[in-house]
Parts: sequence; C-alpha cells; structure tokens
Amino acid sequence: MTVTTLGARERMLLAQRASRQIARLDDAAKTALLGAIADAIDRDSEEIVAANRVDLERGAESGLSASLLDRLTLDEARVGALAEAVREVAGLPDPVARVLEEKTLPNGLHLQKVSVPFGVVGSIYEARPNVTVDIAALALRSGNAVVLRGGTAAEQTNAALVAAMRSALTENGVDADAIQTLDAFGRDGATELMNARGIVDVLVPRGSAQLIETVVTQSSVPVIETGAGVVHVYLDESAPLERASSIVVNAKAQRPSVCNAAETVLVHAGAAERIVAPVVAALHAAGVTVHGDDAVVRLADGIVPATEEDWATEYMSLDIAMRVVDDMDDALDHIRRYSTHHTESIITDDDAAAERFLAEVDSAVVMANASTRFTDGGEFGFGAEVGISTQKLHARGPMGLRELTSTKWVVRGSGQVRG
Amino acid sequence: MTVTTLGARERMLLAQRASRQIARLDDAAKTALLGAIADAIDRDSEEIVAANRVDLERGAESGLSASLLDRLTLDEARVGALAEAVREVAGLPDPVARVLEEKTLPNGLHLQKVSVPFGVVGSIYEARPNVTVDIAALALRSGNAVVLRGGTAAEQTNAALVAAMRSALTENGVDADAIQTLDAFGRDGATELMNARGIVDVLVPRGSAQLIETVVTQSSVPVIETGAGVVHVYLDESAPLERASSIVVNAKAQRPSVCNAAETVLVHAGAAERIVAPVVAALHAAGVTVHGDDAVVRLADGIVPATEEDWATEYMSLDIAMRVVDDMDDALDHIRRYSTHHTESIITDDDAAAERFLAEVDSAVVMANASTRFTDGGEFGFGAEVGISTQKLHARGPMGLRELTSTKWVVRGSGQVRG
Repeated sequence: MTVTTLGARERMLLAQRASRQIARLDDAAKTALLGAIADAIDRDSEEIVAANRVDLERGAESGLSASLLDRLTLDEARVGALAEAVREVAGLPDPVARVLEEKTLPNGLHLQKVSVPFGVVGSIYEARPNVTVDIAALALRSGNAVVLRGGTAAEQTNAALVAAMRSALTENGVDADAIQTLDAFGRDGATELMNARGIVDVLVPRGSAQLIETVVTQSSVPVIETGAGVVHVYLDESAPLERASSIVVNAKAQRPSVCNAAETVLVHAGAAERIVAPVVAALHAAGVTVHGDDAVVRLADGIVPATEEDWATEYMSLDIAMRVVDDMDDALDHIRRYSTHHTESIITDDDAAAERFLAEVDSAVVMANASTRFTDGGEFGFGAEVGISTQKLHARGPMGLRELTSTKWVVRGSGQVRG
Repeated sequence: MTVTTLGARERMLLAQRASRQIARLDDAAKTALLGAIADAIDRDSEEIVAANRVDLERGAESGLSASLLDRLTLDEARVGALAEAVREVAGLPDPVARVLEEKTLPNGLHLQKVSVPFGVVGSIYEARPNVTVDIAALALRSGNAVVLRGGTAAEQTNAALVAAMRSALTENGVDADAIQTLDAFGRDGATELMNARGIVDVLVPRGSAQLIETVVTQSSVPVIETGAGVVHVYLDESAPLERASSIVVNAKAQRPSVCNAAETVLVHAGAAERIVAPVVAALHAAGVTVHGDDAVVRLADGIVPATEEDWATEYMSLDIAMRVVDDMDDALDHIRRYSTHHTESIITDDDAAAERFLAEVDSAVVMANASTRFTDGGEFGFGAEVGISTQKLHARGPMGLRELTSTKWVVRGSGQVRG
C-alpha cells in the first residue's frame, strides 16, 4: 500500500504501532538510528534543496514576506547544519529507563517509578523546515514515534526531509511509520491531529502565539504550551546602573526575535531619576526604540509614548516598553497583569528584595541579576531544547529530552493480595 | 458584597487572588489551617447533616438510586470521618519548596528547580460530599486555592461544607476566597470552569468515565485525567494455581466498585485446562459472576457467555470477564485494545515472561504477581490520594500531594549577560 493513499488517522495509527518498536530500542540503537538519519539528510541534500526551491518559488508567488522566505530557505550549508543538529541529539544521554523512585513496601512489594517514552509525540508548527528535523530527532531519541504537521508553505521541503529520515529508519530495520507527516492534509491534518486522543499522547505546538492559542483551546490531545514571552526586567530601587544597563541591553538586543528577549523594563520610582536616562541612552546606542510611559518621557529624550497595547506586546524586534512603577508591589501587579509567565528578572543590590521577587513572581523562570536570555535549554545544560514551556503541567521552562518522557510504576510481587 | 451575587468567573478571579496568599503560607501555617478546617467541620456537624437531609429528600423525590443516595448521605459519624481525613492531610509533609534540581553554571549562575503550588486547582465531580472536603484539603495543603463544582444533587451539603471550611479560613486570617464553589451555577458553572484558562491552572475531574470524557474533550484548562479502569490480570502459562486464584479473587472481589478492581482475566492457552476451572470456582465461591469466551464456557461450569461488550466494560460490580488467549502476544494485543492504561498484572513463575509483560504493557502501573488493588496512593505510601492518573502528562498512576505542585526555575546571578 502506498502511503499517499492513507488518511491522516490511518497514518497516526501506523505511527502508534511503530511507537512500540521505537520504545523498545536501547540507548545504542537510538544513537545509531539518529546517526543514520543525519547521514541520510546529508546524502539527500540535493533533493532537499531542490524541493525547497519549489516551496520558495511558490512562496514568492504567493507573496510571503522576505523574513518568512528566509526562514523557509534551505541551502546545502543549512541542510548540513540540520544533519549536524541530529548528530548532537544522538549524543545526548538516553532519557528512558531512568529509575526515578524506588521502594519496598512493608508487605514486600517492590516499586519502581521508571521513565518511559510517551509513545507518539505530535507537533503542529509553522513553515520552518528545521523544526521538522528537530522534533523528529528529539522524539526518536526519547523513544517516541512522531507525527508532524508543518506549515503548508514548507510542504515540499518537509516531504523531502521526512523521506530522507524515513529511508534511514527502513535501512536500519526500524518501521518507517515512526515518522509521519500530515502536511498533505492541510487544515484537516491539524484538526485530525488535535482530535487524535488515544493515538497521539502529547502535542507540542511551535510557532506564533496565535497558533499555540488555537492548539491549546482546540486540542483534546494533551498539549504542552510553549513559547510566547512578554518578558520583564525590573530595575529595583537599589539597581546598580552599570549592571542594569548591561542586562537590559543584553536581554533586549542580543537577539530580539526570540521568546526570552525582554519586552518591558519596569523601573522603581526611587531609582528613576538616577537610572532611566542612562539606561535609555544605552538602549538607543544599541539601536532600540523605547516606548515609555509619561514618567519615562519626562526623564529621557527620544521616547515614543507608550500605549496600553505596548505592555502586552511581544515585539520580537528592537523595541522595548519602559514604565516607572511606584514600588515593588506596583511592579508585581504589572507583571501579574501582562506577563506570559515565561521569564522575569529583578536587578537589585537588595537581597531581601531579590528573594521577594523570586518567591512571588509566578513564572517558569525567575531571575535575580541575570539576563533573561539565559532561559534556554542549551544554556541550562540540557543539550537540546524541545521548547520553553509556559504552562504548569508536566514541564515548566526549558524542556529537554527528559520532558518528552512519561513514567510508569513497575511493581514486582510474590503473590501479595490486599487485606 | 455578598458572594451569592457574584458570577462564576468573578468567583474564580477571587480564588486566583487568594491563591497568592495561600502560596506564601509556610508548612506550619498550612498544617494549622487544615486543623482549623477539621475543627470547623466537626463544630458545624449539625448544620451539615441538616443540609444533607434537604439534598437527600430532594434526591429521593427525584428518584435517585439507593446507591447514589447512600453515597450522598452524611450522618454525624461520616462528618466526623471527613474532619479526621482533613487532619490526616494536615499531617503530611509539605510538597512545596522542595529543591528538585540545583546546579551552578560555568558562568556562575546558580539554578534551582523548586516545587511551587499550581495556583488554582479546579475539580468537577459528582454528588459525593467527601470529594468536596478531600479536594479542598489536598489543594490547600499543597498551597493552592480551589474551585469546586460538585454534583447538583449535593448542592446544599456542599454549601454547608464549604461554609464551614471558609469560616475556618477567615478565623485564621486567610482569605476565604481560596475555597470557591460553583455548584449554584449548574451546568454553566462547569462550562465556565472548563473555560477558565489563565485563572484555573489545572482541572481534576472525579467521577464516571462519561464525566471525565466530557471534561477532557471540552476543557481548555489543562486536565489531569483520572480514573476509569478496565484492569487486566493475565495468568501466564506457568501461573501457579493458588497464587492465580487468590490474586484474581482479591483483585475482583475485595472491593469491586473501585477503579483498581480487575475486570478481565486473560488465561494462556497452555494453562487453561489446568487453571480455568479452579479459578472460576474460587470466583464463584466469592460471589462473582464470570463472563467467559467459548473456551472458558467449555472448561468451567456456570459461565455467562461473554459478548464483545464485556471486554470493554468496567463492571464496578461482582462480575468479571475471562478469556483464553493463544499466548502472551495475544494477551498483549487484547490489553492494548481494551485497557484503559490504569493497571495490569501478570501472574507467572517465569521471570522472562514477567519482565516482558512489565516492559511492554503501556499502563500507569504494571505488576507481576500482585493484586491490582495495590494501585492506590495510600498503599504506595503517599498518605493521601488525589486520584489515579491514567494519562501520561505530568502525573501517571496514584497521585499524592506532590502531583498538585508545579515547578519553577530560580536563577541567581551577579550581573551575567549572554555572550
């Protein structure tokens, strides 16, 4: 039977069947499999680039923006980088079969809580071909099958990447159905994936806030919410100027298009006279446009007056909002109202203030005296990043391979019954 | 403003505000608070029983079954038991502020992953007043506020229980809005709760498979799925008769109405002649009706022929299904098809068979040579049970207080920026 005649649900059922084989692979087999996938991507580089050219032409005709076209573009070097990323994931420690708890009950029952693969991991994402390879590699490395639904703008590219990866599975005696794509089914593919409860064990949306919102509200498959970051840096009354400036500039300007980049600076009123003007000057020097409230407008030159909308905006650009707050209570209120619970950082020399901020801010990552750009799986030492979870269930903050596993209790007895 | 004039959403927002105070309570304060709640329940016992009588009369008029009326009934002794259960939860270790991971990065950043309350825990359940008190106590002990939506048949009882608990909060200087009930809003209350994403952090449905299914498919608040158990005991070729009989009888008959009770026995064909008749005899002696496939009907007397439906049924009664399978592959296929991924147990003297079963069965708890009745938070030593999760995200198997917490990363630096 040819895969193209199968419906979305049939493909997911095949992935579920294949997941049983993947789950049984040991560490060495998974490492070898990912090595083979990397080699296959290198080997098929020409076909992948050719398929990508088709998507790019179609994208240009349909008026995709230059930045979207850039994200979509694969040349031989970028394909090589994709393969290299798979090799890195191959080398990470196996997250499966770790014994997380162990005890023997008074009745002699021996209990182990062990890490196990989820089974089938689904992902819905936008037209970034690197996600296709990333998610597949991370899912397989953690013993899962994967169902992919990428942006239709990358359909040919994804098909070529999936074909390369599937061929590596087949050549290694592994059921190729462990990697499935639903790109061919358009919107229906996404809908079927979100309704595949009982087949797909967890769904990880990657992309815009709108895409994530759609998946979270519509999916009956459990979702791990990643991403959106309206990230705050709070300059406390005692914030040393140089530290405040360097962290604010780094948090905003080092890479403005990512979720851990700062979007709003809050300044304690008692520090505003001393600190607003030089911090703004440092931001301006870094090419950042500052959207300020009335107090900031009074204290510094070249400020764009902020509107209510600015406080809730994830700019993803060289723009930052700045507001003077009465005190820490006011800062905490502002954060509660506008934060997406990703990362917030306080800059202060006052330990009590730092500890209060760390305790009371309800975000995945809370920081004192550090750039928010450190919220990252690589920086945290996870070796790979599945995404940054902004929800509280299962995983919170940067997710590595371990977050793509579940657990099960293994109970060994000798005939015990309950009294 | 009186609480009765507030809408469901307003009540949940008040719970969210109150959750900040609950989250800051230390271990001793939470223990004292739960002690005060237990005392208030004892103190208000008469009012609670009186309110319960109103529900019971209404229930009798509307034709509730005897067993539902029994579950709904509270007398002074049962109210005392509710208070005692709260005291037990009060005495459990605080699940909050545990340091789960800790490391210092090469750049000097100090990272801690600490356990934190979810914030607001919601629960939708049926007309069992004990759940009202259980969930509130577990939520508060783990530093969370709670929003309750119980069965309307218990509305007066729940209102009296909630009033007693809220009075204990107020008397201890804690915002009473940390316990909210939406019973007065009927179906709308449940709908609003399922749509309260961003206010309610996690939703735990408790009750029938149908209720849980509704919540899982309709809620945009993340759900922890608990409960339904189509639980299998597999008698392997080498299963010793006495062990097989005692475990099967215990797993079914010790308490047939609970989710960890066995519903289906699978027997290896090579053991069937030896074992089916005496196991059936033991089940019959325990008052169990056996629904068997053709092979079982041939091998034992007094069998009710099983239909396809039997394999998927959670009887919750003294009924069990029994089927002869060709071998372990056949048993694993059957389990994959009909299991609700709660608990399955193999009875065998063959270690290799046991290990294969433990590895390949994809359930929250997998057992060798033990009664499935041991899948229980109390038996596992958790001290309290929030429910038994049959999903793979966040928690799997019996959930204790720890499963009502999330985590956050706390990062302490000295001015680090990312290079």
